[in-house]
Amino acid sequence: MAGLFLSFEGIDGSGKSTQARLLAEAVRARGHAVTLTREPGGSPGAEEIRRLVLEGATDRWSAETEILLFTAARRDHLEKTIRPALDRGEIVISDRFADSTRIFQGITRGDLTATVDRLHALMIGLEPDLTLLFDLDPAKGLARATARAGKELRFEDMGLAFQQKARDGFLALAAQHARFRVIDADADQAVVADRVWHTVLPHLG
Amino acid sequence: MAGLFLSFEGIDGSGKSTQARLLAEAVRARGHAVTLTREPGGSPGAEEIRRLVLEGATDRWSAETEILLFTAARRDHLEKTIRPALDRGEIVISDRFADSTRIFQGITRGDLTATVDRLHALMIGLEPDLTLLFDLDPAKGLARATARAGKELRFEDMGLAFQQKARDGFLALAAQHARFRVIDADADQAVVADRVWHTVLPHLG
Repeated sequence: MAGLFLSFEGIDGSGKSTQARLLAEAVRARGHAVTLTREPGGSPGAEEIRRLVLEGATDRWSAETEILLFTAARRDHLEKTIRPALDRGEIVISDRFADSTRIFQGITRGDLTATVDRLHALMIGLEPDLTLLFDLDPAKGLARATARAGKELRFEDMGLAFQQKARDGFLALAAQHARFRVIDADADQAVVADRVWHTVLPHLG
Repeated sequence: MAGLFLSFEGIDGSGKSTQARLLAEAVRARGHAVTLTREPGGSPGAEEIRRLVLEGATDRWSAETEILLFTAARRDHLEKTIRPALDRGEIVISDRFADSTRIFQGITRGDLTATVDRLHALMIGLEPDLTLLFDLDPAKGLARATARAGKELRFEDMGLAFQQKARDGFLALAAQHARFRVIDADADQAVVADRVWHTVLPHLG
């Protein structure tokens, strides 16, 4: 088997990180080797770049510089974590991947979609086999994310209008690419986990 | 006046940093406002990216990730330091700019020249008005750089064959672009400073 690359996308507070953990457990219980990872980050070098991007004031970096830093982190993540795991035949589950850059830098901070796409084609290339979009009313997502209130409030700080723009962007992207599955994330954790499981199961072979 | 953008390039130990300082003093003494800067770095954010790239083992980042990190640093440097200074009509002297990425990542670590050029066109765009290439026998440059032996030995560590390849690359680049002037750097500091001064003077207006 050549491995399977799954990405989980969605606005903050959509529950995707929890669902990624739950899916990793379920897939492991079925006997598959799993690499559960996340972006930005997912390899030691990429985690350092993550800290550089997420700390400090919201306007610390321009959208263009942020896109370059996220792409650098993604390249390291791809080389050190994702590709080796896929080569070992594992199921890779990444909490965010390139679609997050397409939305959070490409759409919500101005029209940089073409730049993000060109940069991805030039330096990354790979797309997930399957992308699960966790869709939720941004007001509910924002309440969850704010309640969680950790150190990394860089994006959450940007408020409801920002999250609404991000949600619309994700849904538009999902409509364009066959690899997307939209998961209704407005339900109990166990119900959403069940939706995820039945979406992924046919791809496990 | 719209400002003038000068870059100083060359292998390690070619004396370009010292010459950049001396030129800045001479140009200021003539009454011009000068911004003396350097790469990687040159703005607070870019200096942090510089630390990330230059610290740690030589093989810590792939050439591709390094190119992305340097381009991110360059974008920040351009936005926060170079563009504002040029807009104020200043003379900007940068100790290294994009040509260093073309050589150190584009040529010496495999054939990534086309990648570096596409990334530059997409995310940076600007080239210097004038680029001074400080040319020196790599054996002499390496001896100078090793004697200086600070913390940042990432590139110097790579030895003489590496420096020779870099020198050849710089000379080839200089032959391709009209903005280059090759300065023979194998002379006393004052003699080289005089060569620099007479090269730059016609462009000061």
